[in-house]
Amino acid sequence: MKKIGIVDTTFARYDMGHAAIDELKSNATGFRILRYTVPGIKDIPVACKILFEEKNCDLILAFGMPGPKPIDKQCAHEASTGIIQTQLLCNKHILEVFVHEDESDDEKKLARLADRRAREHAINAIHLLFNQDELITKAGKGLREGFEDAGPLRM
Amino acid sequence: MKKIGIVDTTFARYDMGHAAIDELKSNATGFRILRYTVPGIKDIPVACKILFEEKNCDLILAFGMPGPKPIDKQCAHEASTGIIQTQLLCNKHILEVFVHEDESDDEKKLARLADRRAREHAINAIHLLFNQDELITKAGKGLREGFEDAGPLRM
Amino acid sequence: MKKIGIVDTTFARYDMGHAAIDELKSNATGFRILRYTVPGIKDIPVACKILFEEKNCDLILAFGMPGPKPIDKQCAHEASTGIIQTQLLCNKHILEVFVHEDESDDEKKLARLADRRAREHAINAIHLLFNQDELITKAGKGLREGFEDAGPLRM
Amino acid sequence: MKKIGIVDTTFARYDMGHAAIDELKSNATGFRILRYTVPGIKDIPVACKILFEEKNCDLILAFGMPGPKPIDKQCAHEASTGIIQTQLLCNKHILEVFVHEDESDDEKKLARLADRRAREHAINAIHLLFNQDELITKAGKGLREGFEDAGPLRM
Amino acid sequence: MKKIGIVDTTFARYDMGHAAIDELKSNATGFRILRYTVPGIKDIPVACKILFEEKNCDLILAFGMPGPKPIDKQCAHEASTGIIQTQLLCNKHILEVFVHEDESDDEKKLARLADRRAREHAINAIHLLFNQDELITKAGKGLREGFEDAGPLRM
Repeated sequence: MKKIGIVDTTFARYDMGHAAIDELKSNATGFRILRYTVPGIKDIPVACKILFEEKNCDLILAFGMPGPKPIDKQCAHEASTGIIQTQLLCNKHILEVFVHEDESDDEKKLARLADRRAREHAINAIHLLFNQDELITKAGKGLREGFEDAGPLRM
Repeated sequence: MKKIGIVDTTFARYDMGHAAIDELKSNATGFRILRYTVPGIKDIPVACKILFEEKNCDLILAFGMPGPKPIDKQCAHEASTGIIQTQLLCNKHILEVFVHEDESDDEKKLARLADRRAREHAINAIHLLFNQDELITKAGKGLREGFEDAGPLRM
Repeated sequence: MKKIGIVDTTFARYDMGHAAIDELKSNATGFRILRYTVPGIKDIPVACKILFEEKNCDLILAFGMPGPKPIDKQCAHEASTGIIQTQLLCNKHILEVFVHEDESDDEKKLARLADRRAREHAINAIHLLFNQDELITKAGKGLREGFEDAGPLRM
Repeated sequence: MKKIGIVDTTFARYDMGHAAIDELKSNATGFRILRYTVPGIKDIPVACKILFEEKNCDLILAFGMPGPKPIDKQCAHEASTGIIQTQLLCNKHILEVFVHEDESDDEKKLARLADRRAREHAINAIHLLFNQDELITKAGKGLREGFEDAGPLRM
Repeated sequence: MKKIGIVDTTFARYDMGHAAIDELKSNATGFRILRYTVPGIKDIPVACKILFEEKNCDLILAFGMPGPKPIDKQCAHEASTGIIQTQLLCNKHILEVFVHEDESDDEKKLARLADRRAREHAINAIHLLFNQDELITKAGKGLREGFEDAGPLRM
């Protein structure tokens, strides 16, 4: 039985963790979910490390929604750096699912983007855990989580 | 008995450590407080590491007040990176509570912001130590420490 | 028998992994190829670490195609930092082969650049694994993978 | 007998190490000084690590004077990041005393700033080694090494 | 017998490794040189780590020539960060000798700058390995490798 961690924040303005859990349960079995909510994105790396090392998670989906200001971008950078370090210390994947508040001016569109991106990365998590060959068939295809795919370059 | 570390600086222009200690004591029992003051924010990471490894703290609140200049922003970035590294090395949370001097032009407002943010993160510390499920109920709710909450996206 | 890892992404818009495998097989023998495809470039570092430590790869070629926006540049920076860390943790080379979408406005040119850069770095991989002295003869020669060489400075 | 390390550079345009040693000797006893001079600020982190691990220093004062160009700022950032990492690896304080060449247009003022900052951080070093409670009494007081103190926020 | 590593790139447009080896041999004895050429500057950190850990080098001179574009500056930053990390992991010095292509518009001047900087850092290497006290006498003197020295501040 695999364990999938869901790490998210009280800062985010959409419950991406809930969307991802719904998508995971609709598309696969053979796993258990552990959820860990922290205040902000800079609290995510250590939460992931604790889930890997103390709760034996096999893969983590990490959700955050950085604000639009320069300081928010810097926080996102620091969080991302820590998320990559955590993966290297544990040899396990963390799929970072960040939606930046300035990706849309419209609240409804932003919520739909967050929901879709969370769900599409939940599918990526299933591939990484249970079916890595599926990802090889999509190498270089210009996929985009949350948006229409860019597709491969037209030659 | 849990141990909560308070790390702060002589550079900051408001005694956020004091505010946090007051808030912690007003809202919970079952913990002891250790305080460690350093000159500037770049001295915070190693102070936290020492409190974790030599004093067995379980969680740390780290307070800083970066100045308004580009070099100050860079120092804050370096300190934040070190704070995240420290958490990963120790598998324990450090709640970074930074108030940037340029968050307000008004000294009184800045002091009130620092006081409120310190207190609201003290409450987060209590949740992380004693009641993590409380944070899950607030996932994706758009909470903001020190300001009015942004709230969840309206759909 | 050496093992060469190929790590690439579903985000990229050209199948550089395929081009590199073709080039490797056309120019050398005595190695086996392991391929690992991940969603985006920030997933590359841990995939490399897993290939080094759990699959005993001797060298990895890592392919990515960052988008044109500032956030894409930041992701590339974070991925690169993680790729360097991974090499230091494993004492083995990862040749990072990134093609930035804004290196050309023309899709066909971008695809040709990606193909050529992938192939020229495949040759670098062969030199690093089997013939390091060949690289010493080219030190300071202004070589450029994917473009015409800049050449040594004219004195 | 405590050991205080003094790490400085041939790049700097003022002998801050000398000023700090003078200040240390004027204000405390019970320590020995080890000096290690390197070419530039990016050589400082490993010099500190060597002083901690091979010479058993208890605390280090690290002096640098970054130039005014963007590349100099980047070097300072890289050095600072390494200095923080070194502290985390050794659980000991390094007080980073950097004076940026563009902090003053006037050479005399810059020299005086460097001298004063070096001396004021020497006092911080004494507090950290021998009297940490003294720093707690100054928490949140808006102290500034090398300049007039900003003081606490007026409410 | 000390071992000095020379790490350089095929990307650079001047053979600084050759210049440094010539300078080292003209000014000292009692060492052996190991050379390791890689494609680009981001390949330098792991090459240094391998020379330290698998070839027992005592000190490394690392030569690179970053291009003039923002992406080149970012690569240089990533390489520098990795070079500092490598030193901290091995407790040995790497003298980073980077010449940025935009340090001069004139190819001949750029080549002379590269040659001179390589040679002056070769002398620094000799001091660090064989005569550290010589560097202490130059602390705070405003030395500049490759250019005229800035000198100490005039008071």
